[in-house]
Amino acid sequence: MKNRGYLGNGLRIIPLGGLEQIGMNITIFEYQDSIVVVDCGLSFPADEMLGIDLVIPDITYLKENMERIKGFVITHGHEDHIGSLPYVLKEVNAPVYATKLTIGIIENKLKEHNMMKTTKRKVIKYGQSINLGCFRIEFIRTNHSIADAAALAIYTPVGIIVHTGDFKVDFTPVYGETIDLQRLGEIGKKGVLALMCDSTNAMKPGYTMSERTVGKTFDNIFAEHTKQRIIVATFASNVDRVRQIITYAVKYGRKVVIEGRSMINIVTTAIELGYIEMPDDLVIDIEQMRDYPDEKLVLITTGSQGEAMAVLSRIASSMHKKIQIRPGDVVIFSSRPIPGNEKSVSKVINELTRKGADVIMQDTHVSGHASEEEIKLMYALTKPKYAIPVHGEYRHLLAQGKIAVSMGVPKDHLFILNSGDVLEFNDTYAGIVDHVPAQGILVDGLGVGDVGNIVLRDRQHLSENGLIIVVLTLEKYSNRILSGPDLVSRGFVYVREAENLMEDAKDCVNESLERCLDKNVTDWGKIKMVIKESLSEFIWKKTKRNPMILPIIMEVLV
Amino acid sequence: MKNRGYLGNGLRIIPLGGLEQIGMNITIFEYQDSIVVVDCGLSFPADEMLGIDLVIPDITYLKENMERIKGFVITHGHEDHIGSLPYVLKEVNAPVYATKLTIGIIENKLKEHNMMKTTKRKVIKYGQSINLGCFRIEFIRTNHSIADAAALAIYTPVGIIVHTGDFKVDFTPVYGETIDLQRLGEIGKKGVLALMCDSTNAMKPGYTMSERTVGKTFDNIFAEHTKQRIIVATFASNVDRVRQIITYAVKYGRKVVIEGRSMINIVTTAIELGYIEMPDDLVIDIEQMRDYPDEKLVLITTGSQGEAMAVLSRIASSMHKKIQIRPGDVVIFSSRPIPGNEKSVSKVINELTRKGADVIMQDTHVSGHASEEEIKLMYALTKPKYAIPVHGEYRHLLAQGKIAVSMGVPKDHLFILNSGDVLEFNDTYAGIVDHVPAQGILVDGLGVGDVGNIVLRDRQHLSENGLIIVVLTLEKYSNRILSGPDLVSRGFVYVREAENLMEDAKDCVNESLERCLDKNVTDWGKIKMVIKESLSEFIWKKTKRNPMILPIIMEVLV
Repeated sequence: MKNRGYLGNGLRIIPLGGLEQIGMNITIFEYQDSIVVVDCGLSFPADEMLGIDLVIPDITYLKENMERIKGFVITHGHEDHIGSLPYVLKEVNAPVYATKLTIGIIENKLKEHNMMKTTKRKVIKYGQSINLGCFRIEFIRTNHSIADAAALAIYTPVGIIVHTGDFKVDFTPVYGETIDLQRLGEIGKKGVLALMCDSTNAMKPGYTMSERTVGKTFDNIFAEHTKQRIIVATFASNVDRVRQIITYAVKYGRKVVIEGRSMINIVTTAIELGYIEMPDDLVIDIEQMRDYPDEKLVLITTGSQGEAMAVLSRIASSMHKKIQIRPGDVVIFSSRPIPGNEKSVSKVINELTRKGADVIMQDTHVSGHASEEEIKLMYALTKPKYAIPVHGEYRHLLAQGKIAVSMGVPKDHLFILNSGDVLEFNDTYAGIVDHVPAQGILVDGLGVGDVGNIVLRDRQHLSENGLIIVVLTLEKYSNRILSGPDLVSRGFVYVREAENLMEDAKDCVNESLERCLDKNVTDWGKIKMVIKESLSEFIWKKTKRNPMILPIIMEVLV
Repeated sequence: MKNRGYLGNGLRIIPLGGLEQIGMNITIFEYQDSIVVVDCGLSFPADEMLGIDLVIPDITYLKENMERIKGFVITHGHEDHIGSLPYVLKEVNAPVYATKLTIGIIENKLKEHNMMKTTKRKVIKYGQSINLGCFRIEFIRTNHSIADAAALAIYTPVGIIVHTGDFKVDFTPVYGETIDLQRLGEIGKKGVLALMCDSTNAMKPGYTMSERTVGKTFDNIFAEHTKQRIIVATFASNVDRVRQIITYAVKYGRKVVIEGRSMINIVTTAIELGYIEMPDDLVIDIEQMRDYPDEKLVLITTGSQGEAMAVLSRIASSMHKKIQIRPGDVVIFSSRPIPGNEKSVSKVINELTRKGADVIMQDTHVSGHASEEEIKLMYALTKPKYAIPVHGEYRHLLAQGKIAVSMGVPKDHLFILNSGDVLEFNDTYAGIVDHVPAQGILVDGLGVGDVGNIVLRDRQHLSENGLIIVVLTLEKYSNRILSGPDLVSRGFVYVREAENLMEDAKDCVNESLERCLDKNVTDWGKIKMVIKESLSEFIWKKTKRNPMILPIIMEVLV
């Protein structure tokens, strides 16, 4: 059933990010002439996407229905919810609605892309609603690791959809108030058609700890290390965490240095907008560090995931120009390694430890996402007719599905959607009715979408085996060899140590070439294939390796 | 101080694996005319070692002192302790001493490398000693995740060194008896010069659980899933684990299928040598699976780390020819992800879950290594004068160092050695006196050591950016362009979608080439450099990418 035009009468929900594009949050809500997009995130490349910088959503469907898009509604200011906005707005321009800090962080991006003038944006307060076409959307206060996170109540002609965004329930948040459980209950009482709830920690039993518990740990660490310099690495996007570090810097009379581009960007915005309050002279420039003794300094940096180019890794490997680790320095990792980063994090810890730093990771982080009991609470408040778990790997969505069923959602009212699935709700039916393109689009440098599977396969092949180029010049018409064959290799072996191998390889090419010419094979494609096959076989036999082999034939008319 | 000849009077201990080569265990013990090598492991390549299969030790020092090598003494049959034997024995042949199962597993390797005839080997029993030159070496029973693991008491002219190998203290082992704590105490009473103790879990407080606790979990899972097929993934080398799975297969009347080359190899050896006992008809061939209903089958496979080519990954991604996942299948991960593998493991779990499998990972694994309290016990029994922590990352060695000091070892009697450090003990002195070559040697296919930094850097460059080859034919003497320049790219962009870019790139090359020829530049090196620089700049400006650029000039005499 291909129905890109959409002539139906129902409400349609289409995740463009989602299961196949984990970590990229973007969902289309569509009813007759109205389309609203909730979030517009990006994801980071999987290991096998060699050389790729970012992955952004495929917005073919949005482009085809551009005139119906009423706006982008953003739940909070994290990359996986806002990162694709500049790319997407360039193609399908529409106003952006979000809370104050979220808009502030989005504006950083728009400035970078020189898009401030072309992008309409509006700050929405908690409790406020906006009308977008036939949708009304209400912003509801939640807790997360960044201030100003919102859940959305989306009032549609067929019923209310509650989208939690990323949330946890924090009864003692470090900024603002506890998630608006009353309002969620009130909306639940009216009747909720479907709940789209954060699944990240659905496999974690119990409750997620309050952000404030991390503050207690910081307090202890600061109190115990009054003579040492303190370095804290965390996510730039964890504004609440940075707020807490600054609180304890003030309490213990230390100046604060902030390092790392993304950290400086976000923190500056948060300070400007009043989300982090502090004395004017608290933050000092890195150049001023030398004016203060170690015990009067806290350094807040990026690199808690062991990212090779981030500040902390550069400090650890002595590649940072302005900061050297000294024995006694206290380094706090205030984050948990994201799966896949454990090895890089270990490497950084070992380097820091060898230089004499005291590395602390115990009780220095809590998650910003709801655990099992909080998810149950969300179901208990909203009592949805349907459950559409969002945000997580398949096993996380499935775990929330089980929670939903345990909370009374009928099994056949549970939808675990793939990216691009079109889920329709109308008076008589709820189900997947269509599928739109939703492959991730790879961004490499300035190129958007010009690197695909073939290119990635070549990169993989080159990365593991290197290549051998065979080049020769043939006379036009006669096919007499005028020059070559020459062999050039890269990423294969130390050629100096393998001179014999390369000589023998050349002999092998010569032989197969002569065989071709003897038989009067004049088709270059054929000649190339013969060279490739015989050389490939020769190299495998000699080395059990499989370099890419690239024959190039030049033609000269003598 | 270069002293490769060694004329000293002291005992020298030289780790060739170790800190820079984590996971590769090989240590030289040297006294006057005698050299003994303890263990001979390999390590697996770091992420940045693209295309590398294995890393083996640099044995330059052993080759230079070949005539003094009395033998290789191996503590147990794991890859990181035996894996390099075939490579090393080819260069410096000497007899191999180990317990029965360890020799059995080593013999598998020797057969593969056709080295059974050239390698002397001797089975040693627990409690037995061997004399190698001026050393006497006693094998002491320990517990680990494989049967027949041994600690070594090395009696040297300057004192006794206790080397624990990999160990834990298991009071209820699934095979054999508890580690010989009495003998360790007795030797301690005599006086131990230095303890070289396993550091792997030095950062884990408390005691490591007994292997038997995993059996309890298996018992429960088997009892609860009487209608389903059960698949258990674990390390091939975890012979004790396989033993337990087989125990419960027998108890619950299931047949066993073993899949994965390494799994079949080791298990077959363990069965042949009597380390796994079972009814003759218990293990069936994979082809016979169809003759049994699901509830009568247990499949034991490799792939618990999400390794792409291992059985479980192939089953999960439907690439396995003979085994398909069916809804209801129970898949037990009986191992913990090694740091760096979490992402691959998640991927496999998600694929299995999507196909309807029930994935179980709770309480299905215990470590084979001693935790903090067991390490303390080892120090309490042996009361060494010096501590030389082994087996682990820097932070693990350091953690054991702290334990050692807490157990009474003076701070200046603690040695954390780098690979290649020469630690000397004599009557008056203990300290690092020299350093021998101990870089890891990279193995790629059949090539040992022919891939080095330049090749790896090229592979890295190719993997992230791909390459553009510029090829042209010039007339000899005149330097007239006879053919080309032609541009060929791989791993860069979809050429079809970037036709304009590649056309413009060609123009750019033509221009720079003409500039050269106009100026009568005849030096090919210079011409290549100009092409490379101008094309590189052009591509960066247009795409913000940095492919490898490889100009090739052919020469023809017309």
